[in-house]
Amino acid sequence: MGRFRLTLEYDGAGFVGWQRQANGLAVQEALERAVLGFSGETVTVVGAGRTDAGVHAMAQVAHLDLARSIAPDKLRDALNAHLRELAVVVLDAMEVEEGFHARFSATERRYLYRLLDRRSPPALERGRLWHVRRPLDAAGMHRAAQALLGRHDFTTYRSVHCQADSPVRTLDALDVSRVGEEIHVSARARSFLHNQVRSLVGSLKLVGEGKWPESMPRAALDAADRSRCGPVAPAHGLYLSGVRYEQEP
Amino acid sequence: MGRFRLTLEYDGAGFVGWQRQANGLAVQEALERAVLGFSGETVTVVGAGRTDAGVHAMAQVAHLDLARSIAPDKLRDALNAHLRELAVVVLDAMEVEEGFHARFSATERRYLYRLLDRRSPPALERGRLWHVRRPLDAAGMHRAAQALLGRHDFTTYRSVHCQADSPVRTLDALDVSRVGEEIHVSARARSFLHNQVRSLVGSLKLVGEGKWPESMPRAALDAADRSRCGPVAPAHGLYLSGVRYEQEP
Repeated sequence: MGRFRLTLEYDGAGFVGWQRQANGLAVQEALERAVLGFSGETVTVVGAGRTDAGVHAMAQVAHLDLARSIAPDKLRDALNAHLRELAVVVLDAMEVEEGFHARFSATERRYLYRLLDRRSPPALERGRLWHVRRPLDAAGMHRAAQALLGRHDFTTYRSVHCQADSPVRTLDALDVSRVGEEIHVSARARSFLHNQVRSLVGSLKLVGEGKWPESMPRAALDAADRSRCGPVAPAHGLYLSGVRYEQEP
Repeated sequence: MGRFRLTLEYDGAGFVGWQRQANGLAVQEALERAVLGFSGETVTVVGAGRTDAGVHAMAQVAHLDLARSIAPDKLRDALNAHLRELAVVVLDAMEVEEGFHARFSATERRYLYRLLDRRSPPALERGRLWHVRRPLDAAGMHRAAQALLGRHDFTTYRSVHCQADSPVRTLDALDVSRVGEEIHVSARARSFLHNQVRSLVGSLKLVGEGKWPESMPRAALDAADRSRCGPVAPAHGLYLSGVRYEQEP
């Protein structure tokens, strides 16, 4: 019996999200079926972040337990062979201590949000970023974001469906930068509330467009009032870009 | 009556190539239909490069003539509105001299070829690059490529279906570099033969894998023998990345 840690890349467009749903295929389910397909074992795959429908991952982390012994590289290749038709791949597999838990052992999650800031819609990157026609002030968005760092009640920036016990989170980084025609928003925290990054990005975008003063995202935070949040940014611009664990440098 | 120059981005997966074909929708045709849709005019759209089925463009250039007068920005937006369902967009439109010809006035074409060099297949970039499982020696590929620069008979590196009168071309740049998990091959010339870039990349990939010595691509060139070419790289890794004209800096 061994526990394995997987690093996963997926295109969120093909899935109803990470977690099993009645209305379509979840990433978790795709992986569990792949495990069943190659090993005959029925397992539960636990992910570090329960990404919503349409949200992508560059490096989601998950774990699973297998009764049979297998070399991690073989596990990776076998899963990828079974996932061939789907937009999810295993980038890496390693055997870990049985105490490792993809979700509860994680000490940091990172997300990237991509906006395309130009007049014409995307042709090559359709479904991979949020198209905003109006020129955005990335520097102003970045300044506004810095006022949100630290430990706060993020009620304003969480979904009304969020199931977390507490709305308090510590936001460690929220950087906004221009990369060619794109604006990248990078967020880092131990954990995030449901829709927190997309809520933050939707509000910062209003600053970028000049519709909100730079002080507004912080004022909305302080109000701890969901109705003060800007329109939530669409799922297809969001990427779970990395997860860190205690034992790592 | 005015002539307009368009800069285009497209995802080659949705098209049978630039040029009109019997077996599906061509990029050229999609544009001509969009022009007809918004202006009622039947025009011919002439492209700088006749990209093959599956080949993408970051900045293809085309021209067309319109009887009605229209501001270039309006033309761009009107075409994009009519192209909404398709994976092609107009990045830019400008009015040009009637002597401007997208194909014949071009003094330089640039192509980018993207390879993904890792064990696991792509999930996010499926259909956007060539997946090569074996670790590639990018520096060796680059050195081998440098021996191909200059004016040569490129018979080895052109399709047997190439309709150009002469197999002689001047290759101005062929740079190979590693960008994270990807290998990028950038090619620059006044014009290219049919399948020339994909033929060059397919052969350089053999060098990268250690199957060909670094001297082999040049030896194959000197043989002027199509059978000496490596397997042609797939279309979906290739991007027409830019076109230059005389009047430009």
